[in-house]
Amino acid sequence: MDKTQWNERIKLIEKALVEELQEDKALDPTLCESMKYSLTAGGKRLRPILVMAAADAIGAKGTDFIHIACAIEMIHTYSLIHDDLPAMDNDDYRRGKLTNHKVYGDGMAILAGDALLTQAFEVTLRQDNLPADVLLKVVREMSIGAGPNGMVGGQAIDLEAEGKQKSLSLEELKKMHAGKTGALFRAAIRSGAIVAGASDEELAALTTYADCFGLAFQITDDILDVIGDEAVIGKPVGSDERNDKSTYVSLTSLDEAKKLAADTVAEAVDALEMFGDKATFLRELVEYLLKRNK
Amino acid sequence: MDKTQWNERIKLIEKALVEELQEDKALDPTLCESMKYSLTAGGKRLRPILVMAAADAIGAKGTDFIHIACAIEMIHTYSLIHDDLPAMDNDDYRRGKLTNHKVYGDGMAILAGDALLTQAFEVTLRQDNLPADVLLKVVREMSIGAGPNGMVGGQAIDLEAEGKQKSLSLEELKKMHAGKTGALFRAAIRSGAIVAGASDEELAALTTYADCFGLAFQITDDILDVIGDEAVIGKPVGSDERNDKSTYVSLTSLDEAKKLAADTVAEAVDALEMFGDKATFLRELVEYLLKRNK
Repeated sequence: MDKTQWNERIKLIEKALVEELQEDKALDPTLCESMKYSLTAGGKRLRPILVMAAADAIGAKGTDFIHIACAIEMIHTYSLIHDDLPAMDNDDYRRGKLTNHKVYGDGMAILAGDALLTQAFEVTLRQDNLPADVLLKVVREMSIGAGPNGMVGGQAIDLEAEGKQKSLSLEELKKMHAGKTGALFRAAIRSGAIVAGASDEELAALTTYADCFGLAFQITDDILDVIGDEAVIGKPVGSDERNDKSTYVSLTSLDEAKKLAADTVAEAVDALEMFGDKATFLRELVEYLLKRNK
Repeated sequence: MDKTQWNERIKLIEKALVEELQEDKALDPTLCESMKYSLTAGGKRLRPILVMAAADAIGAKGTDFIHIACAIEMIHTYSLIHDDLPAMDNDDYRRGKLTNHKVYGDGMAILAGDALLTQAFEVTLRQDNLPADVLLKVVREMSIGAGPNGMVGGQAIDLEAEGKQKSLSLEELKKMHAGKTGALFRAAIRSGAIVAGASDEELAALTTYADCFGLAFQITDDILDVIGDEAVIGKPVGSDERNDKSTYVSLTSLDEAKKLAADTVAEAVDALEMFGDKATFLRELVEYLLKRNK
């Protein structure tokens, strides 16, 4: 998949996301508007792209599973809405746009997040062209990835560390990120693999890739915060340091963080070996993390 | 089912609810504690009792589906936690205990609610003794009942009406309650019926019962607010009126509300006819709504 194909897929995803909302059936138009506001706020659409790319790697056609991809993006969007709330990170802007609660108020933003999480399950369950056992496995991946032992668990560790202004150890930092961002990358990639009919061996290899991808994503994010271009990454460079936030750079060193990122990417690439050319996009994507500037 | 049997089932539910938490696997102990705090805060456990009673009516053994019952109670508990937040109803106490956010802070309370909602799906999906197609139907009932066209939709209508200090029409009030409380009663009863193997005709009859139950529950709640005994219902009598809240009493009259409640209960009882003695408990339960004082 080249850049053009990626952009085409982003367009497909953005069109499908709006269609999933079923505005005609909405009990409350403002709730629906608030969900749509955040769903259409742009972004790289990395998680749904990963769902489809994992299906491609298994030899299926990624775009056949666009609704599963949308469900994962809905879970991601819900987590951003709640994360931005005053009671959490208290952010007024995201990707240059006002955050959901700044437009609709805290109460409606809480409900929009709740609604997107619930709707993600409903959208997935509507895919009755998939065999029942496959659908069950996928919904379970999502609930584990998003739940208290996954994403929400990681957010709770983060919230507590910030509240206590306590530095995390490197182990705690890894655990926090494995939950907060890693678990949904894992759910995205495993979901794509499962709907495409992956064997146990293929699923295990893609799970290793997913975990390395999540880790490399976070380390390179921390590196960018130190060396990135403010205009490009969209938040003030060095903001983590000013907030005394534990990061891979603050807990090791810039050089060590770079080495850890490179090693993790190499491990991800190794895990893709059995997929040959079908995994070219996944390979390029994880390698891109080392070069990205946003 | 008599009072003793009900109390026995409440004990079973409360024991199972704590077991569902899987504390040993929790990423963050405080998150787990916060979920447990609200899950063990008591209450009538009406929704899980209804799951099991619906299964009984179909001729199955209600207690065989205790995990499904727990999942519904988790969804209910999540909705109470979010509803009590300062950005929503801003309540400091519930059932005489401090609300979740007063103990754990707003951020952790938001996450505890998110986690309970997600965990409800996971708990249901773990029930692999049920056939895959049945399990899928039940998870779908839950996601529709809890989602933007159900519970969260009703909460959004309520939030907006309060924010604008706007009175609702009787139709709007019905729609709001059908979402906010009715949709989860419906999901509870339909889930119990589905796991017990209900026929289409049986499911339709229990759905009518569920919708009447939800409506009668709300009307009698509004009546109680006007005539109830403050010590028994646990909130100041007449608090709805002082808050200029639209209720079935304020939009009709006390007498009309009482008549509507009685008619609705009669309709619920009629819907149970085909189940004979197996629905004795469901029958007594909806009739009890007319006599309740809390």
